[in-house]
Amino acid sequence: MAALLETRLDKPLVGKLAIIGMGLIGSSIARAAKQQNITAEIVASDISETVRARVAELGIVDRVAPTVAAAVQNADMVILCVPVGVNGDVAREMGPWLKPGVIVSDVGSVKTSVVAAIRPYLPANAHLVPAHPVAGTEYSGPDAGFAELFLNRWCILTPPEQEDAAAIDTVKQLWRALGSNVEIMTPSHHDLVLAITSHVPHLIAYNIVGTADELRQVTESEVIKFSAGGFRDFTRIAASDPTMWRDIFLHNKDAVLEMLARFNADLQTAQKMVETGDGDGLFKLFTRTRAIRRGIINLGQETAAPDFGRRIAARNDEPPQ
Amino acid sequence: MAALLETRLDKPLVGKLAIIGMGLIGSSIARAAKQQNITAEIVASDISETVRARVAELGIVDRVAPTVAAAVQNADMVILCVPVGVNGDVAREMGPWLKPGVIVSDVGSVKTSVVAAIRPYLPANAHLVPAHPVAGTEYSGPDAGFAELFLNRWCILTPPEQEDAAAIDTVKQLWRALGSNVEIMTPSHHDLVLAITSHVPHLIAYNIVGTADELRQVTESEVIKFSAGGFRDFTRIAASDPTMWRDIFLHNKDAVLEMLARFNADLQTAQKMVETGDGDGLFKLFTRTRAIRRGIINLGQETAAPDFGRRIAARNDEPPQ
Repeated sequence: MAALLETRLDKPLVGKLAIIGMGLIGSSIARAAKQQNITAEIVASDISETVRARVAELGIVDRVAPTVAAAVQNADMVILCVPVGVNGDVAREMGPWLKPGVIVSDVGSVKTSVVAAIRPYLPANAHLVPAHPVAGTEYSGPDAGFAELFLNRWCILTPPEQEDAAAIDTVKQLWRALGSNVEIMTPSHHDLVLAITSHVPHLIAYNIVGTADELRQVTESEVIKFSAGGFRDFTRIAASDPTMWRDIFLHNKDAVLEMLARFNADLQTAQKMVETGDGDGLFKLFTRTRAIRRGIINLGQETAAPDFGRRIAARNDEPPQ
Repeated sequence: MAALLETRLDKPLVGKLAIIGMGLIGSSIARAAKQQNITAEIVASDISETVRARVAELGIVDRVAPTVAAAVQNADMVILCVPVGVNGDVAREMGPWLKPGVIVSDVGSVKTSVVAAIRPYLPANAHLVPAHPVAGTEYSGPDAGFAELFLNRWCILTPPEQEDAAAIDTVKQLWRALGSNVEIMTPSHHDLVLAITSHVPHLIAYNIVGTADELRQVTESEVIKFSAGGFRDFTRIAASDPTMWRDIFLHNKDAVLEMLARFNADLQTAQKMVETGDGDGLFKLFTRTRAIRRGIINLGQETAAPDFGRRIAARNDEPPQ
């Protein structure tokens, strides 16, 4: 964990931090915030009683509050870590209890609709600095979180134009202390970027796993056995949390449909190449995509080990390379 | 490597083995065959002089032959490890030099067209037992190979109906000694199974990476930075060898187009759900795909570690879990 320690703070950035929603992301922020000395106190809440009990048991926050209202009172910063579709409800619930000057943030994968859903419920003196850490795994819940989740990942902030510079800076410092790189963009540009790098890929992955599941000529056991031919790479992202993803598609409809239309047009071209036996066209398509892969590895967003390092699973007497 | 040693043979199964094509698969077979005592002698050839020189340097075979003809003479078994489109040419070249009773096999990802391309050039007394090890990484060339590549993977054999049982059994034993599970099916069923588990997923992955590459509103650097949101999983398989993949699509056209049509129909349904805001429909789609993922992990075809174990890259002071 040497890499995270490099960004550890000498003194807390925030007095009292409230985290609403203690799933993969919320519980990872709690763990990392503690370890990185980001906040003097963490209070967490979650709509699920089971999750609240588990968080208390894990001991990753200072206090578990039974309600949103109880959690946010006197908080200097509140981070909403709930499915995108619930942000509005949570904002309405907490609005009356917020302390003047509080900074409200979130971690949602959609930004335009989130700002629209939260803002109306905040007092005029509250600061709103929406954030989206582009990090995650296919697992959910408070046990799935870990402090290094955000390390060397990007976090995108989409503050409204007129937002207070000091509030923006505090959120920026928080994410840097969590180990992330921070980028600022408009909510609508964010939604377009994520539509192509995350939302459409997820929809496609869910879809092809669904198609395979429906086939009669090919059995499910054959799909599973021979998945090492490529299919398994799609199943990982198709195993992500269904509620979270349903909300993303309901709230980023326009950008998703725009990017999906482009994908469909390109796929038709590729399909035509297969139909007509256009080997040169296929070769060209298969070649130009390699540069992007190289860029991703060079930027540390991916491991270069074959099979994402899966090879070590087959030779577990040797350390990973 | 304990797991591979379990299947090591007491005495060689094959006297002289010729491997034509020394890329990822050919060089992995050579390494594993040596280590597993599968053959008394290995002779290899490759159309590329650079590859031949490198294979000699690596010392992973007993002899490097300058031509296909020189490699196959007196061989008891010949395995073609070349792109699917080249099998016919190689078969024509080697036909006259084959020893009576030789077993010819291959490793191609398409089977119907491969059998049709090879068979006419073999003497009547040669046995043909096509094989397809469902294993690989995104890397190519003789340096990318490793002995454990086939360990715990499936290898599909598609022998013609009238083929000699002893020859089939020898190829089956060879793949078991390489650590694989063996399944026998008809060439046409193989091509359908692989279309959905491997070929269509690859076409889709190449395609979405291509779509992202073309966008003007979203920069390439943004695609790269924010790839951890899902996109990077597609880039791995879109980094595979372009020649190999071009040939697969040219030779498995019918099955690929059939499966692609189903995928497209399903994607239209999903798209309609996004358009109309059908949250229940999306939730249902996103839920039923989880069972397949679980099946793949349970069958040892995938690691259950978050992010394919990528997490260890961020905490390299701890052993993989």
